[in-house]
Amino acid sequence: MADPAAPARRGRPGHDRSDVLREAVALFNRQGYDATSMGDLARELGLTKSAIYHHVTSKEQLLEMALDAALAELSEAVEAATTPSYAAPAGRPPASAYERLRALVARSVEVLVAHQPEVTLLLRVRGNSPVEVAALERRRWIDARLADLVRAAAEEGSLRDDVDPDLVSRLLFGMVNSLVEWHRPGGDVDAGVLAHAVTTLAFDGLRAAQPDPA
Amino acid sequence: MADPAAPARRGRPGHDRSDVLREAVALFNRQGYDATSMGDLARELGLTKSAIYHHVTSKEQLLEMALDAALAELSEAVEAATTPSYAAPAGRPPASAYERLRALVARSVEVLVAHQPEVTLLLRVRGNSPVEVAALERRRWIDARLADLVRAAAEEGSLRDDVDPDLVSRLLFGMVNSLVEWHRPGGDVDAGVLAHAVTTLAFDGLRAAQPDPA
Repeated sequence: MADPAAPARRGRPGHDRSDVLREAVALFNRQGYDATSMGDLARELGLTKSAIYHHVTSKEQLLEMALDAALAELSEAVEAATTPSYAAPAGRPPASAYERLRALVARSVEVLVAHQPEVTLLLRVRGNSPVEVAALERRRWIDARLADLVRAAAEEGSLRDDVDPDLVSRLLFGMVNSLVEWHRPGGDVDAGVLAHAVTTLAFDGLRAAQPDPA
Repeated sequence: MADPAAPARRGRPGHDRSDVLREAVALFNRQGYDATSMGDLARELGLTKSAIYHHVTSKEQLLEMALDAALAELSEAVEAATTPSYAAPAGRPPASAYERLRALVARSVEVLVAHQPEVTLLLRVRGNSPVEVAALERRRWIDARLADLVRAAAEEGSLRDDVDPDLVSRLLFGMVNSLVEWHRPGGDVDAGVLAHAVTTLAFDGLRAAQPDPA
């Protein structure tokens, strides 16, 4: 039953750094970062440990690269949404805070889907090492900008005023982040469809516009 | 600086089964169920291991009791919401699926806040033992009933028809479950306020009813 080609292919010399990183992230998510050794990763890749150290200097460097991939894209999206002039194409008036918030929620869903393994890892970070502490610091920066944007949208009168903006911020991005719990990477739900579902639910609400009069 | 009364109080003979369970759940959430031994729990409580075995037969029994506390309340809420006659007080017509869904989302938030440590543990279960497999089975039963209720509300025309009901179900309860990530047990946000925020966001939407015409 065994396929004699499989182990040979896994151990082939063609691994590059991004292959090693991808397998490392998958393994960290599966069995936990702390519980995973470079020896485990070598076995998973069918490589020797020294072959892995040809690509990266440490397990911590792999974690740092993965977290950076997620954080860089999220930070960029937040930066774009929280800089009104940045968000407005040349010749157009700056977008409202509401429009920028709605676009940012959609963009966050897309980033999460595109980098689901790295975002999953990021959301589990607890601050057990300098790399993790630095990542938590960047997450807090992102969360603070998100909360600012929700408050700005509330202040311009675009959001309903019977829900606290800080609570709105946590619920909105709590819903976005919860995607990592059930969305299957490469699954049958498209990122655009997901982004539309999340923004429609959050901003327009689920209740039908013309409820049944019965 | 040390309070000589503190260790004595922790080690006092007055521990009952619910104290042991509460400390066990806190410890499982803090350092992981698999990584926690009965010896760790004994140290945490200032008891001997044999004193703990006076209260419970095994670590797995503690897990089972904790998961059951969360699952029993959630199942009861789902049972109530998915049985139209059960949901309608005597003499009143059955509530619509929409009303029952909205009430169930609010009730889920309240159960989560009331049993936050046990629900946190439940949401981390991965199926590594018969107790965990049984809990996952009960979670799937709950999820399937939730999805049925969302579909029933969509079919009666109460929900907007441009978002897939299965996606709605996942996003709704993803948002509810995300509370365990940031809500502080005994914190400053009341369960009723949280339940109102979640249902308002999800069903009515965040956008102000009369948007700024600018």
